[in-house]
Amino acid sequence: MKALVFGPDGLRFERNHPEPEAAEGEALVRVRLAGICNTDVEIVRGYMGFAGVPGHEFVGEVDGQRVAGEINAACGHCSWCERGLGRHCPNRTVLGILGRDGTFAEYLTLPRENLHPLPDSLDDEVAVFVEPTAAAFEILEQVPLSGEERVALLGDGKLALLIAQVLRRRCRLSVFGKHQEKLRLLRDVDWSVEPPAGQFDVVVEATGSERGFQQALELVRPRGTLVLKSTVAAGAQLNLAPIVINEVTVVGSRCGLFEPAIAALASGEVDPRPLISAVYPLEEGLAAFDRAQQPGVLKVLLKPTPGSPGRGAARR
Amino acid sequence: MKALVFGPDGLRFERNHPEPEAAEGEALVRVRLAGICNTDVEIVRGYMGFAGVPGHEFVGEVDGQRVAGEINAACGHCSWCERGLGRHCPNRTVLGILGRDGTFAEYLTLPRENLHPLPDSLDDEVAVFVEPTAAAFEILEQVPLSGEERVALLGDGKLALLIAQVLRRRCRLSVFGKHQEKLRLLRDVDWSVEPPAGQFDVVVEATGSERGFQQALELVRPRGTLVLKSTVAAGAQLNLAPIVINEVTVVGSRCGLFEPAIAALASGEVDPRPLISAVYPLEEGLAAFDRAQQPGVLKVLLKPTPGSPGRGAARR
Repeated sequence: MKALVFGPDGLRFERNHPEPEAAEGEALVRVRLAGICNTDVEIVRGYMGFAGVPGHEFVGEVDGQRVAGEINAACGHCSWCERGLGRHCPNRTVLGILGRDGTFAEYLTLPRENLHPLPDSLDDEVAVFVEPTAAAFEILEQVPLSGEERVALLGDGKLALLIAQVLRRRCRLSVFGKHQEKLRLLRDVDWSVEPPAGQFDVVVEATGSERGFQQALELVRPRGTLVLKSTVAAGAQLNLAPIVINEVTVVGSRCGLFEPAIAALASGEVDPRPLISAVYPLEEGLAAFDRAQQPGVLKVLLKPTPGSPGRGAARR
Repeated sequence: MKALVFGPDGLRFERNHPEPEAAEGEALVRVRLAGICNTDVEIVRGYMGFAGVPGHEFVGEVDGQRVAGEINAACGHCSWCERGLGRHCPNRTVLGILGRDGTFAEYLTLPRENLHPLPDSLDDEVAVFVEPTAAAFEILEQVPLSGEERVALLGDGKLALLIAQVLRRRCRLSVFGKHQEKLRLLRDVDWSVEPPAGQFDVVVEATGSERGFQQALELVRPRGTLVLKSTVAAGAQLNLAPIVINEVTVVGSRCGLFEPAIAALASGEVDPRPLISAVYPLEEGLAAFDRAQQPGVLKVLLKPTPGSPGRGAARR
């Protein structure tokens, strides 16, 4: 099958990569559309020491049924799995990230229990955002919001713009980013004000930058909550003293549940289509990765099946 | 009055420092005994940009009544104060730390509402630990413990040894430190095992070292809680990615309520006396600061009144 493969020589396109074989309890999923995430960009720079087919965002098809898929493949019988927290199973593999080939290929395998059927009303180009939208909903699992909280969201990348759509009706949200052309994609969200220091009940850090973490600490009020959504670069120079002095709670937040994400995408509450910068055929995967790293570019999608659209057709 | 004063030329002893004047609502407190905290050591190295009389741990006397005193002097009418969180009042001064002279003097002033009368049964040498013991109890305010949690405490300094005594009957506690002679002071506490990675529901970081923070992240289980008790050095090289990947909650923890601390010291549940390394007269404050920074030394006390004991009498 066709696949993008990351190895010692970097990322390359292979036309005859071996198809994965479904183990017991797993399904062989035909990939219809996949998305490039910042984590994938980090992975092809060496993050996680991963080797194989990267990619974890996708819409697929099994036996004619379109599906989204949770990316953590848990062992199913440890204490974490018993508590319904297979996302933290210490024996897990993670699609395209840890010990399991991912979505930048014609086929992938996942445990059948990881798959979620998709309603017909969800176009592939919307449904491919289920996984990152679930990651946005994870914030609500960890930090319940009543609606009255003043929340600051730092960042205007792909994930930040999904988080903004998830949070905007659930709190008093302000978004702070550097790129007006990206922030303008947000409807009904306040992104014009200068951030006042120490005023926000909750600050969501989704910039992925070291500076973003420090700014988040400046914005959060004493005894407030800082949600850390992006893996800040290792070895960053950080001053954690304000966490202690202001008794801030920092909550690390990663993957989330798929049900609320599918529902929000189906209802149109979250509309990811303005975030699509380009769709590339899998054969042009290297160019797609280059594109995904260019300034101003948001989501780049990869279409592995025959009948792909033309060369990296720009979407906006 | 006699006082230790920190200024541009460093810390010095003054025999005729002006006495502080009590503002409206404040009391003039005669200091009976004061303790040197690691924060004081940091302050005379320039932390907080403080100038004046340092020190915030004390037992004092007002109108013949012995008292302990909360160190945050709040404005009393902001939204923080209205919510009973004067400890985070943005207009506050902090005894010996921020805008208010502290305890290494014959007299200090504090708002009367900050003062807590002490039972006669509490010796001065025990009562001088009320403030740091309250800081230890703050952990329970922020992270309620049912008794079944596996808790790791990192550190064997003065604060860590108080925290160990507060936590030992409230969870399944293991203490990890570098100094057997300090750990041996703990009764009924497990401190012999090698720390197993990723197993602890709660990890309390009280080492004050950058390495301690990273080790705490290694010990805490996914979705567990890391309580940050010490202000890790600014600009430390830290990798926060595990917070996100394992969805850890980091809770900054500072000053606490005095009532439970006074009760625990009065009942003997917390016995700080083995932590006293030396008592110095205020005149020998510079030597006391030197002593406080020597390896193996725990709490050094300063006695400002006449009739002080002899030169830095060793207590153990």
